Amino acid sequence: MDDPTEHSPRLLETVARSCDVIEALEELDGAGVTELAEYLDISKSSAYSYLTTLREKRFVVKADKTYRLSLEFLYLGKTVRHRHVLFEHGKSQAEALADDTGEYVHLMCEQHGLERNIYKVAGENAIGDAYHTAKERKADHLHFTSTGKAVLAYLPEARVEEIIDEYGLARKTENTITDRDALFEELRTVREQGYAVNDEEEINGIRAIGAPIRGNDGTVLGAISVSGPTSRLNDDRYHEILPKKVIERANVTEASINMSTASRSL
Amino acid sequence: MDDPTEHSPRLLETVARSCDVIEALEELDGAGVTELAEYLDISKSSAYSYLTTLREKRFVVKADKTYRLSLEFLYLGKTVRHRHVLFEHGKSQAEALADDTGEYVHLMCEQHGLERNIYKVAGENAIGDAYHTAKERKADHLHFTSTGKAVLAYLPEARVEEIIDEYGLARKTENTITDRDALFEELRTVREQGYAVNDEEEINGIRAIGAPIRGNDGTVLGAISVSGPTSRLNDDRYHEILPKKVIERANVTEASINMSTASRSL
Amino acid sequence: MDDPTEHSPRLLETVARSCDVIEALEELDGAGVTELAEYLDISKSSAYSYLTTLREKRFVVKADKTYRLSLEFLYLGKTVRHRHVLFEHGKSQAEALADDTGEYVHLMCEQHGLERNIYKVAGENAIGDAYHTAKERKADHLHFTSTGKAVLAYLPEARVEEIIDEYGLARKTENTITDRDALFEELRTVREQGYAVNDEEEINGIRAIGAPIRGNDGTVLGAISVSGPTSRLNDDRYHEILPKKVIERANVTEASINMSTASRSL
Amino acid sequence: MDDPTEHSPRLLETVARSCDVIEALEELDGAGVTELAEYLDISKSSAYSYLTTLREKRFVVKADKTYRLSLEFLYLGKTVRHRHVLFEHGKSQAEALADDTGEYVHLMCEQHGLERNIYKVAGENAIGDAYHTAKERKADHLHFTSTGKAVLAYLPEARVEEIIDEYGLARKTENTITDRDALFEELRTVREQGYAVNDEEEINGIRAIGAPIRGNDGTVLGAISVSGPTSRLNDDRYHEILPKKVIERANVTEASINMSTASRSL
Repeated sequence: MDDPTEHSPRLLETVARSCDVIEALEELDGAGVTELAEYLDISKSSAYSYLTTLREKRFVVKADKTYRLSLEFLYLGKTVRHRHVLFEHGKSQAEALADDTGEYVHLMCEQHGLERNIYKVAGENAIGDAYHTAKERKADHLHFTSTGKAVLAYLPEARVEEIIDEYGLARKTENTITDRDALFEELRTVREQGYAVNDEEEINGIRAIGAPIRGNDGTVLGAISVSGPTSRLNDDRYHEILPKKVIERANVTEASINMSTASRSL
Repeated sequence: MDDPTEHSPRLLETVARSCDVIEALEELDGAGVTELAEYLDISKSSAYSYLTTLREKRFVVKADKTYRLSLEFLYLGKTVRHRHVLFEHGKSQAEALADDTGEYVHLMCEQHGLERNIYKVAGENAIGDAYHTAKERKADHLHFTSTGKAVLAYLPEARVEEIIDEYGLARKTENTITDRDALFEELRTVREQGYAVNDEEEINGIRAIGAPIRGNDGTVLGAISVSGPTSRLNDDRYHEILPKKVIERANVTEASINMSTASRSL
Repeated sequence: MDDPTEHSPRLLETVARSCDVIEALEELDGAGVTELAEYLDISKSSAYSYLTTLREKRFVVKADKTYRLSLEFLYLGKTVRHRHVLFEHGKSQAEALADDTGEYVHLMCEQHGLERNIYKVAGENAIGDAYHTAKERKADHLHFTSTGKAVLAYLPEARVEEIIDEYGLARKTENTITDRDALFEELRTVREQGYAVNDEEEINGIRAIGAPIRGNDGTVLGAISVSGPTSRLNDDRYHEILPKKVIERANVTEASINMSTASRSL
Repeated sequence: MDDPTEHSPRLLETVARSCDVIEALEELDGAGVTELAEYLDISKSSAYSYLTTLREKRFVVKADKTYRLSLEFLYLGKTVRHRHVLFEHGKSQAEALADDTGEYVHLMCEQHGLERNIYKVAGENAIGDAYHTAKERKADHLHFTSTGKAVLAYLPEARVEEIIDEYGLARKTENTITDRDALFEELRTVREQGYAVNDEEEINGIRAIGAPIRGNDGTVLGAISVSGPTSRLNDDRYHEILPKKVIERANVTEASINMSTASRSL
């Protein structure tokens, strides 16, 4: 029999709809059968069948007449994070960087063309807790964050084109790079410098510095960043001191990953 | 048209299978099409369709030929936890209890008849990190933990019967209560005392003390516990001092939940 | 000419409506002309005239098309508090009591038959910040709090009857005293003991102990209380230690007020 | 029907008079009917009707024959402050600045062309408590304080002209800028520097440094300042160190506001 992966994939509507139900329960913070049916524009009996099956499989709990996502997702999520190479090798580096700079530090990676938060840690002067917590729960675009640009700079150019085609270059502030050529120019600078900045490109008053974390073969695995108010990320601190610190943490994380790989082939 | 929820539910095989695929990817720590097909005993083309659809919906990522759960699960899991009433009101109490006792503290609740970890925090002498981290990622039975018994003691008796019927009373140690009548007798003691113990019933050498956390209407929402080695949880500390501390933290959590509810109706 | 205060008062509808507009702007967190007109069931041109006049008098600010209460209210409110005899003489006592007990301490008084918060201070273990902050902004009934009962116990019986007639005896928990005779019986106990308790009468899991603060002529001026979770306000602490501490603070406040009065007639 | 807001507003005399009564009760620290009637030059029966209605609406209390503002104003005032964006995001920054400098720190904004205190906090060496407490209760002119000038510098020039036309440029000390052109020149300097000084322009011997806090669109929302004796606010501290610290706190407050706005659109 021939390899199915060589054919263009057949999408399964019911599987996709199951994912929609899960996302809807998150979005609506729980829902009854009728509310869910209306939200997804499906019949009530269909909504009821989805919910009952997901509950049977322990992905959903029911209290009174409201269905909610179960704690199964916390378990799955923790497992995913625990197994992520950047969490395993970068967590202690992120913590040390937050300690050293007093600001917010993030470990991020790209999935499906979007930025995904792996770990965040707040230094003692870190601001914007509510924002970072909210953002942690939403995949966001890559082109206006320091980590996002650090990752884009090391993805194949064709992949970057694909991502821009899919998501566009939405403007967040006056400084956001919304022009394709300007972005590619910026990514060249990132590669030259070895780090990316976010100069009030996402939020007015907030800057960030991010460095890529790359695997043994050069593939970019993600990035680490420090972010904070422009009045603290300025002058030498912005142009020299913090970039050096961030790059060092990225480098230590990479070395730790490589040593771990190497130890397996000893 | 009549209410679908009055009929016995129709389970959707494809939805259930989607859940199986997700669980399998967690179990196998990622898998290729062939490996997944074999594991679930489905055709390769079917496995491929499930994976492709889940990837399209961003629940799965692919690297080389291996499919893994995406960080979407971390986001969903964090949202589920953030919205849980025991996390919102009990987190600071769990931290204070760990600080005060130096041992491991857990916030747990029951879902689908199993114990689910909501939050854990290690005091400075806490032991068994690897065990607690592993356990955090698996729903476990209720009858041999202090939190599990604290919850069972306040569930309707019919529900407890149901849970025993479904999962049985597996033995973990010599002390595990594996007899139905003995368990009901134990639950009566829990109600009299206001707290439950785990006296080496899960792990030899480890004791725990758990108190139920109940809502305004008396429904049990979950439990909080402290656990540690028998040599530190003994004598007065085991029989009086720690039970009092655990009950206080449960009570403060309950009061905090009730005040929050009350403030909404001011 | 005769004294107008001997006649039954003539209520001025426009004055009353001005107060309604102020309350509505607080309730709605600011409003446009149309929203306010609908909320108060008045014409748009009338709403516009009220808002414009209040703005002219600096009680209201306008941003875009939304009218909000101005900071004039903060100034007026601070002046009212600063001049309140319980704030002047009781603030330091409330702070000392919070320090000493670690719980929430309140200074309250009765106005228009309702409880008004004058000052609150949180000890280091105090819980329910959000509730107390919300409550601070709403006048509440007197019959289910320790301070409320401490005040009612020393008001003329006819005044207590009047207050019950106006507001009733709403139930907050199973323990709330909702029977008129039972309340009068309770107030007798308060007078015998010299302090009042709130034994989970407002919130399940929360107790409080309140003592009246009375003027030189015996008139009750308000009350001071300590409140916290039942697990900490129990046994001797609930029946002896805390009542003694609260009464002492009330007594010191009274003495301070009397000395201040006396110093003016030296 | 046409939009009433397009017509020039009709001021309601009774509404305005209600405001006058409230202000008079504050000014007079409570008043009897006769005293109020004389103070406002209205008839006793009219004064009586105003007071009775305001009391009916719980804005006024009566003890013996004296009417006073009720604690309703404290509630309204606290709500106004709690909802103010500068309080929400600037309070912790003001506290940190007071801690760091040891001096008095203020959060202010402009309403009706006057300066309004939102929050004040005293560092450990802060002086002038009585002055700052008194001032907190009165709206004051903008042209002689560092916060006032920081705000004026970022208001539209036409609005500044309007404010000067309404309130004039009263002299407080020899250094007060009382000339319109000199003030506009000074505001240009403020914009160049990014902060404003009060160089003994309000009180001899007292200096202050204030920085504007601006919204995402550049609108000025208010200002933050540090003030203290000239002997401590001098040399480098006056010209470099403190301006940098104040600007940083303003910037962090701005960034926090922007992040909060951004998190709502995630």
